[in-house]
Amino acid sequence: MSNPAAPHSPIRHLDALLASLRGSEGALSLVRSLCDDVGPRYPCTPGDVAAVAWAKERLREAGLANVRSEVAPAQLWERGAESCELLLPRRQPVVLTALGGSVGTTGAIEAEVIELGSLEELEAAPQERVAGRIVYLHHVMPRRRDGTGYNAGSLVRTRGPSLAGKKGAAACLVRSVGTDSMRAAHTGALFYEPGVAQIPSAALSIPDADTLHRHLAAGRTAHARLVLECKPLPVGESANVLAELPGTDKADEIVLVGAHLDSWDLGTGALDDGAGCAIAVAALRAMAALPARPRRTVRVVLFANEELGIGGGLAYARAHADEAARHVAAMEADQGDGAPWALRVPEGARDGALTRLLHESLAPLGLELDAGPSRGGVDISPLRQLGVPFVDLRQDATRYFDFHHTVNDVFDNVSPVDIAAATTCFAAALWVLANADERYGEAAC
Amino acid sequence: MSNPAAPHSPIRHLDALLASLRGSEGALSLVRSLCDDVGPRYPCTPGDVAAVAWAKERLREAGLANVRSEVAPAQLWERGAESCELLLPRRQPVVLTALGGSVGTTGAIEAEVIELGSLEELEAAPQERVAGRIVYLHHVMPRRRDGTGYNAGSLVRTRGPSLAGKKGAAACLVRSVGTDSMRAAHTGALFYEPGVAQIPSAALSIPDADTLHRHLAAGRTAHARLVLECKPLPVGESANVLAELPGTDKADEIVLVGAHLDSWDLGTGALDDGAGCAIAVAALRAMAALPARPRRTVRVVLFANEELGIGGGLAYARAHADEAARHVAAMEADQGDGAPWALRVPEGARDGALTRLLHESLAPLGLELDAGPSRGGVDISPLRQLGVPFVDLRQDATRYFDFHHTVNDVFDNVSPVDIAAATTCFAAALWVLANADERYGEAAC
Repeated sequence: MSNPAAPHSPIRHLDALLASLRGSEGALSLVRSLCDDVGPRYPCTPGDVAAVAWAKERLREAGLANVRSEVAPAQLWERGAESCELLLPRRQPVVLTALGGSVGTTGAIEAEVIELGSLEELEAAPQERVAGRIVYLHHVMPRRRDGTGYNAGSLVRTRGPSLAGKKGAAACLVRSVGTDSMRAAHTGALFYEPGVAQIPSAALSIPDADTLHRHLAAGRTAHARLVLECKPLPVGESANVLAELPGTDKADEIVLVGAHLDSWDLGTGALDDGAGCAIAVAALRAMAALPARPRRTVRVVLFANEELGIGGGLAYARAHADEAARHVAAMEADQGDGAPWALRVPEGARDGALTRLLHESLAPLGLELDAGPSRGGVDISPLRQLGVPFVDLRQDATRYFDFHHTVNDVFDNVSPVDIAAATTCFAAALWVLANADERYGEAAC
Repeated sequence: MSNPAAPHSPIRHLDALLASLRGSEGALSLVRSLCDDVGPRYPCTPGDVAAVAWAKERLREAGLANVRSEVAPAQLWERGAESCELLLPRRQPVVLTALGGSVGTTGAIEAEVIELGSLEELEAAPQERVAGRIVYLHHVMPRRRDGTGYNAGSLVRTRGPSLAGKKGAAACLVRSVGTDSMRAAHTGALFYEPGVAQIPSAALSIPDADTLHRHLAAGRTAHARLVLECKPLPVGESANVLAELPGTDKADEIVLVGAHLDSWDLGTGALDDGAGCAIAVAALRAMAALPARPRRTVRVVLFANEELGIGGGLAYARAHADEAARHVAAMEADQGDGAPWALRVPEGARDGALTRLLHESLAPLGLELDAGPSRGGVDISPLRQLGVPFVDLRQDATRYFDFHHTVNDVFDNVSPVDIAAATTCFAAALWVLANADERYGEAAC
């Protein structure tokens, strides 16, 4: 598509890029294909292998160069069958799912359930209250546009099991870290502290957790019968997938955009992070179709194994440490299909010329300049200590945690309008970063 | 609560009744208790027995008279374990649930899946295309305020299995009759035509059905592997629960309000029809707390076994046939927590004085007078041929079919504001019908 109007942006071809993405269903088609043709892609499953092949093919079709994969270790784990009944004393089957990395129950565990409202309360609880019981952690995640309610919630999920294990708990249950009211439990990684007893741990669906909470809040007792057949497995090998849109006069400088190709096993990873992969690939495909190449090289990395150990992100940082200084900016799309509402730039760079240019380019798309410094995403986080500057597009996460890490993370819950908006914003930001005279940081060669 | 303002309504105590329900959480508390303290209540399960006891206790607490139960036969059925994998050819586990009344698979069924868009298409399909295959019926239910999209959808679900069975299909799958985008399948009764082969039948969750549909629409083939351990059981005995607010000068005339106490096994029947039971009980409790009794007797019936055979509704009509002529109006609350938006009265009664009075009483609550005639609900439908006039409050069903007949039919999905609005409207309509000089129909003694 061409843009007949006079160009508004000092960055050449930016107007044409935005025009080509107007009303585009590029990202939507990509995420549909990833869900339908590949499906769930937990590391080292057949879905993961298929996803790597799918990604390479899509990146080649997009007209990108140097399409390749790089080995990334992945912590393997298998969910298996799982079930839970609450005994109130009437038997009520409830929906739960094991936390990623959890050990199984070896048969069934049946014990009294005690509720604690926070990690602090668990820390303060006397050992004799906890020992032999099932700890239920009732932390309620708030719905917020910026998704920051997830931070405290995921801390309860990752740290709770070891804290309960230290006090001799038989198992640990958490209220799902999510914002919905569906009988779908939210999985997510836990972290077993070295040297602490590893206890079976799972998330209850929010309605089931709240039923349990109301029951216990009324001063009644509850028991639970828990079967988790999950088991940690040895480390395996998955792969990051990389491709590039080669630059021209500043080809040595790299603008990176990342997303992660792996997903939890429960849904098809449509939002987490199929949407991010689709946004990145569709943005680069639109750039590759422009009549000229960017000044800097734009690299897309579809990371392996974000969910349980950041295997792909750590492998990339290790493998590319020697060229870290050439990374002049890194972005990540890992908040689903959310339409971006704000731009965040590196600490100290808020008043600079490049930020002004970025903000002027993104303001017409509805973005404000955020007061805080950029933080990057999980996959690119290992690049921080190598001095790589991050640029964030803050994506609207209002609905994201309704589906995140559940069976409902499927294509039907992707918003066509939002994912198109996100693609346009990422493309605009990447194109400005790849073509501006200025760059962030001191790291560039 | 008292209403200090001058009365607006010609019906005495109506203003006080509405004032007492303003901001009331009566129905909300009742449905919470039914979900938490009783839970799922499929006929003749322990939950059903507990529900009958719970209902009697609540009706007595509400200050009602003649609290009693009456035997109602119930068609029993057991769901058991169920699972399905699509073979596309990659194996994808999908979410499905057996249709109520379905036979099981006796082991696993594995066969090719063919899609048909409607009952008409299935009717027209050559036998050799259907025989030995799994029929998938792709009917998409539209979201509508009045919920009428359910009519055509439930016809596909009830009739599809026998139509497919006649042509020798191995099994029948339907797209869930619902409006959501969650991995939660919608169950619901099927109807096996006498003399036709009974084939295992189930509903796929909407995202899974649409994945299958996109796959087949692309011209690919699909197989499915299906395990349904459900089985029909002998007829059992459940119970309708009745209570009355006795009338005064017209005590022989009965104004009936019904809802059904049974629920499917998957959720806790919060919306279908815990909400209706709560609305009816809360409305009668508020009337019983008024300083005077109504002129006519108001009878609440919490019906047994609506979901699979209308056992309770048929038993009530049989047992009360001799007093049918004393039923001057019957209403039913079986559209969840929906706030009513319209009043519907019997054919020919639209211009009468009672309709005017009803409409004047309900218009301030936001209700319009519907052009069509009243239809009643499923439970009271057997009273139609006995000449009982129906009065409908049309409840907003926009969200109802997101949860209906699924695991997500739980307390968390009840809207506190909507169920309070519905309670107020039902109370107002019942109080007018019980106190007006006029009555509908010729049936009264």
